[in-house]
Amino acid sequence: MSQTSSSQVTIAVDAMGGDKGLKVSVAGCALALKQVEDFNLVLVGDENRIKYYIKKHKLPSNRVRVVHAEEEVLMDDEPVFAMKNKKKSSMRIAINLVKDGEADACISAGNTGALMATAKFVLKTLPGIDRPALISLMPGVRKNGSLKMTTTYMLDLGANIDCSVENLCQFAMMGTILSQKIKKVKSPRVKLLNIGSEEFKGLGVIKETSAALDDMKNINYKGYIEANEIFFNAADVIVCDGFIGNIALKSSEGLAKYIRSVTEDTFKGKWFYKPFVWLGYLFFSPVLLSLKNRLDPHQYNGASLLGLKGVVIKSHGNTNKVGFENALLEAVNEAKNDIPNQISAILARRLKVDG
Amino acid sequence: MSQTSSSQVTIAVDAMGGDKGLKVSVAGCALALKQVEDFNLVLVGDENRIKYYIKKHKLPSNRVRVVHAEEEVLMDDEPVFAMKNKKKSSMRIAINLVKDGEADACISAGNTGALMATAKFVLKTLPGIDRPALISLMPGVRKNGSLKMTTTYMLDLGANIDCSVENLCQFAMMGTILSQKIKKVKSPRVKLLNIGSEEFKGLGVIKETSAALDDMKNINYKGYIEANEIFFNAADVIVCDGFIGNIALKSSEGLAKYIRSVTEDTFKGKWFYKPFVWLGYLFFSPVLLSLKNRLDPHQYNGASLLGLKGVVIKSHGNTNKVGFENALLEAVNEAKNDIPNQISAILARRLKVDG
Repeated sequence: MSQTSSSQVTIAVDAMGGDKGLKVSVAGCALALKQVEDFNLVLVGDENRIKYYIKKHKLPSNRVRVVHAEEEVLMDDEPVFAMKNKKKSSMRIAINLVKDGEADACISAGNTGALMATAKFVLKTLPGIDRPALISLMPGVRKNGSLKMTTTYMLDLGANIDCSVENLCQFAMMGTILSQKIKKVKSPRVKLLNIGSEEFKGLGVIKETSAALDDMKNINYKGYIEANEIFFNAADVIVCDGFIGNIALKSSEGLAKYIRSVTEDTFKGKWFYKPFVWLGYLFFSPVLLSLKNRLDPHQYNGASLLGLKGVVIKSHGNTNKVGFENALLEAVNEAKNDIPNQISAILARRLKVDG
Repeated sequence: MSQTSSSQVTIAVDAMGGDKGLKVSVAGCALALKQVEDFNLVLVGDENRIKYYIKKHKLPSNRVRVVHAEEEVLMDDEPVFAMKNKKKSSMRIAINLVKDGEADACISAGNTGALMATAKFVLKTLPGIDRPALISLMPGVRKNGSLKMTTTYMLDLGANIDCSVENLCQFAMMGTILSQKIKKVKSPRVKLLNIGSEEFKGLGVIKETSAALDDMKNINYKGYIEANEIFFNAADVIVCDGFIGNIALKSSEGLAKYIRSVTEDTFKGKWFYKPFVWLGYLFFSPVLLSLKNRLDPHQYNGASLLGLKGVVIKSHGNTNKVGFENALLEAVNEAKNDIPNQISAILARRLKVDG
């Protein structure tokens, strides 16, 4: 816990991480500081450059301090290399601040593999948790007369390639806690990602996990889910191993980008030389803008590395300031709700019951 | 081979399969018959109902004959149950026609698992091929000044859950042949789906497959591909096991459907009560229609079950008549190019070289 009062949490920011580094991270911090009152920031990185951006975006000096870091983890550094050799990097120092109790959470838009390896090495996993998992909100819709926008937690998104039945059950438990504490869902519906809802289709580990989840008292397990249902509010928590989760996440991100590319290309076509079409675009543009906002992927930015002795949030590397703001507010939320200790408490209770 | 002349191929159609059965399948046949000259059809299913739809859509009697089937495979029949017990179904009879040389290919929009199990049981795999694989075209774009629409073959999409290195290498070879013969790509770029382009990220089987593909002389292997690059023309053939392929396919289909739902909902919003916006929509609608056409998933309908002694095409269960037409034309193309024998020939040559 940090030195501040219990309602005031402190977030350490790896300000150098991400495709656009300080430009996006400090701008995102400015938005979050305006949005929410009760948290403070420690910005870690090149002190002079950070101070320039703090001034530019008028960050309130009473809520922000700077810790200098003389190096950076690069996007193509190998995770183990970064963990072993980049001890003076902004990423490493931000994680150290959490370990030393000077911050309640840290956030980075940098190299995902390096962040996972370093965070696991420095913070260690909670007792009873074998492996941390990467969890994030996926967008979705619910048809109920009108269409309602929803969200679903999905884990693991790439931290663990091979998972045991026990690992997957722990993911279900951690996802349930996050959905309860952050999204205020009373009894989150948990589903297991598979390639068919029929019993006979499952892989060995998936089948066994399904049986084990059925027996877990604190999990509201609802069976299998197919990948095409991820975005249709069929569950509050979707569990899968990191290989499959990463494939599902990246292929849907890819398709979204493909649709964006084709849309932009079509809108930029020869149409614009026809005055009526151009006029049509102008009059119709409020609807198109509303659609763009509803589909904005930056709303869902911010994956959490669950299962560590500390809150670690990964922002997408190529997010914008709004995306970074959202990821930062997720860090604030998880720190306020003290998610690691919540997971520990449930685990301890479960071990007691099982024993 | 069928009894017709070599340039005239015959396709057996499971006319009952799919969510909308005859309504879509016969309408799709009508479109395909108008589009392409040199093929004939055998429609298999409920004779009286088929004849009603043949009359309705004015199918040319000299190119179409009907074979009666007294039962159907249902969408929720278990694959093995359907294979063992539904011997008089339209699906089974269509496959039998290929086995008996009365048709050069068959197509069904019915139960995928049942089609795979029955086709494999009746037709058998080609010598040297352990398992058939489900392959389909994925849409894509290439940025080269202007945006160009592209396609990429991807396999396996769900026929095989666990794959060996040898299976995956066979998939690469079959995908290469399809890309060469159907898409006329001289030296198709083959990539292996993984969760990171860096060497250290791969699973055991994927790493070994990568090394094996590097050694194969007839394969233009280009390394790993991440799931977010599927839709950006990074390869002509993408290889993966059926579990991962199915997850990638279904999650991107799901996201596309999500975007469609949100778009339709936004367009149906309160906007339409504002006359200027409504006018804007009218004037801009040619652009929106063009976009809808460019993104239409039915263009890419039709997955092929490669590696069998016969051409078997799976149409999406909920496709429309244009989608069924495209799948049917894929069947015609593969039959004309005699894909099974092409695969056999390459395999035989390879075995000779290796031996």
